[in-house]
Amino acid sequence: MSASDQPKNPARRGFLGATGSLALAAGTLAAAGPAGAAVLARPAHSAKLPVEPFYGLHQGGILTPQQTNSYFAAFDLDTTRRADVIALLKRWTEAAERMSRGDTARPLTDAGDAAPLDSGEAVGLSPARLTITFGFGPGLFEKDGVDRYGLKARRPEALVDLPKFNGDQLVAEKSGGDLSVQACADDPQVAFHAVRQLALLADGIATLKWAQTGFASGAPGGGTPRNLMGFKDGTNNPSTKNPALMNQHLWVGDEGGWMKNGSYLVVRRIRIALEHWDRTGLGFQQEVVGRYKASGAPLGKAHEFDPLDLEATDKDGNLVIPATAHARVASAAHNGGAQILRRAYSYNDGANFTAERWPPWRQGVEYDAGLFFLAYQRDPRSGFIKINKALATQDMMNQFTTHVASAVFACPPGVEKGGFIGAALFAG
Amino acid sequence: MSASDQPKNPARRGFLGATGSLALAAGTLAAAGPAGAAVLARPAHSAKLPVEPFYGLHQGGILTPQQTNSYFAAFDLDTTRRADVIALLKRWTEAAERMSRGDTARPLTDAGDAAPLDSGEAVGLSPARLTITFGFGPGLFEKDGVDRYGLKARRPEALVDLPKFNGDQLVAEKSGGDLSVQACADDPQVAFHAVRQLALLADGIATLKWAQTGFASGAPGGGTPRNLMGFKDGTNNPSTKNPALMNQHLWVGDEGGWMKNGSYLVVRRIRIALEHWDRTGLGFQQEVVGRYKASGAPLGKAHEFDPLDLEATDKDGNLVIPATAHARVASAAHNGGAQILRRAYSYNDGANFTAERWPPWRQGVEYDAGLFFLAYQRDPRSGFIKINKALATQDMMNQFTTHVASAVFACPPGVEKGGFIGAALFAG
Repeated sequence: MSASDQPKNPARRGFLGATGSLALAAGTLAAAGPAGAAVLARPAHSAKLPVEPFYGLHQGGILTPQQTNSYFAAFDLDTTRRADVIALLKRWTEAAERMSRGDTARPLTDAGDAAPLDSGEAVGLSPARLTITFGFGPGLFEKDGVDRYGLKARRPEALVDLPKFNGDQLVAEKSGGDLSVQACADDPQVAFHAVRQLALLADGIATLKWAQTGFASGAPGGGTPRNLMGFKDGTNNPSTKNPALMNQHLWVGDEGGWMKNGSYLVVRRIRIALEHWDRTGLGFQQEVVGRYKASGAPLGKAHEFDPLDLEATDKDGNLVIPATAHARVASAAHNGGAQILRRAYSYNDGANFTAERWPPWRQGVEYDAGLFFLAYQRDPRSGFIKINKALATQDMMNQFTTHVASAVFACPPGVEKGGFIGAALFAG
Repeated sequence: MSASDQPKNPARRGFLGATGSLALAAGTLAAAGPAGAAVLARPAHSAKLPVEPFYGLHQGGILTPQQTNSYFAAFDLDTTRRADVIALLKRWTEAAERMSRGDTARPLTDAGDAAPLDSGEAVGLSPARLTITFGFGPGLFEKDGVDRYGLKARRPEALVDLPKFNGDQLVAEKSGGDLSVQACADDPQVAFHAVRQLALLADGIATLKWAQTGFASGAPGGGTPRNLMGFKDGTNNPSTKNPALMNQHLWVGDEGGWMKNGSYLVVRRIRIALEHWDRTGLGFQQEVVGRYKASGAPLGKAHEFDPLDLEATDKDGNLVIPATAHARVASAAHNGGAQILRRAYSYNDGANFTAERWPPWRQGVEYDAGLFFLAYQRDPRSGFIKINKALATQDMMNQFTTHVASAVFACPPGVEKGGFIGAALFAG
């Protein structure tokens, strides 16, 4: 590799000697032993590796142009020691930085017959623009009334437990978590690999609680991706190119103390009744969404990014964008200016058995698929909670969607070289 | 588009007028109405669309270079009428051919406020080398002792019910099926879209029984992909570039009657205990597999495609490739020459609750991840069944893997223009 801004010798791409012992010198692979079929399978386009920066004022994976795949994992802390938590976050920071460059999670040494220091399924793969975004759940600060790590007083006011919303059908086993890790990459195996190494590094300190894959497919030429309802999703997002808007709605400011330059993440697993949706007329689908399916334009408008006209009426005096249309009820204008940055993925976990609880008592399977909703904001109280209170009670889309899991996390600011994720929290 | 071998005006890439009515003329989009923001978002590389051929002697998705994503679905037939089954297969054939070109599942007409004839989430996406491979399960020929469609006598001898194998822990709800559809594409949303449209087209005739996503990530420069164990998977596959070998092991010959030029598919959902595997020494991992992790070379050899030396011993007289190594037990030499064409995907369905059934009775979550094993063969009796009988009893890998779902299908030959999938079956 010649480009100076590119990682040198990403060791992940070929790290094991063929003899069973690890043979690695300064990130490059030394051929080892008599059967030393050393593999150093660098991608053909190695001069221009798709690498997202790890260090910075903010964490990656928030403003980063959305990758095609996501693997989200929530962990619960098992340890009672504050020092363990700090050690874990340091370990995670180091591993995340390495993997984002396409390297192995840990530096490889000749470990004899110990378990490999990296599980290996990403050997030969591109860095794939991997970002890893960490979050702190309420349980880090206090759990079952216990201040396990002396952090209770440091819990940000904005990190509230989400209220129960109208229609919530949350599965506890797939909700919450003391820590969150979201790996996003343009390759599902790279995202899986990252979470798996971090889970291994948490041995004895934290354990996986739940996990969820996701995908987002965009047109080759770019543009707003479509969700499984077939509609463009994210059109009304505040522009990530507008720093003033990001500072207003996304990034925590001086009010946040150690959370300054961080952001709050709300996660909702939203099952979509695709069977029902697919049998719903196009006109009604568009009324539900408040937009045209093809173009994404607001009803009554011609172009996707035209502003919603919430006052427009048709010749009979009906609102062009119905009072209960999703786009209206979710809009900033409807919510006193509230805005959040959505960065959602679709999910598809196959199909589940279901039974009707009404005549004719049919039984069968339904898609276990929908939207893995992720949204970042400066303050959930004036962001997701405010907007979703309106949506949960007014949105026509609720007849097609069910929130089945939920979590909230404080995502600390980014890491500078030599630091670790959440350092400011523990400095207090 | 100029290339004459490319589809013209693939209508999927922009098919809905923005006014709520469908406005489509001969596959191209006519701008419609006052707010007619017609979208025809063609991929930038439209001159070279990634399209796999649909018509041919064999079905696509078998010899096709493996796509990165798979969505497999099994259906059960609800109808009692043979004519319904034929109608469904004709409908599926037409839709599959259209979608493989990047078109909508059905030709779009102005359906007023009827449900859209295509759910729309693939609008704007690349055809992504979509292939759709159909299969017929035992239930098509006879179910619960009933010959529902007059096909009992046409059941191929080779389409046997799989025996119970040592260690099987099959979940009935995720196994079997009267019909199978495998959509493979380089985009998970394109694969999902395809199965979803076919499920809609089956309305009243067949219903989804179970479904499974999968992914396969290869190095940018090509080469054998690695599975979640971190090892290359598929090295010992018979070469798809060798027609004689394919005729011997993969394609049904004259013995098969209507199945000639088809192939039998065995599907196994194999959960891998990644938590255990990741804590296993590298040397032992390599003994389990019988290959080096880095290079994929057989133990004692230098290169991935070197033949296994099943006789070689070390200085102490031990076999270099252990008697219970996976590569040995699965090898043709170990199984009287039996070979199958594996085309497996990894799967990752998050994490599940689990509890130990022994002291210290720990409870927690485990990855719901592993290998979605798919293998094609001329005859399952001399293919998968023969090989897996050996593996189920001798393979050291069994301590890390559990077969949790299973199915077998007769995949009929390919379709010629004007025909439909499985036509020869119903012609008899």
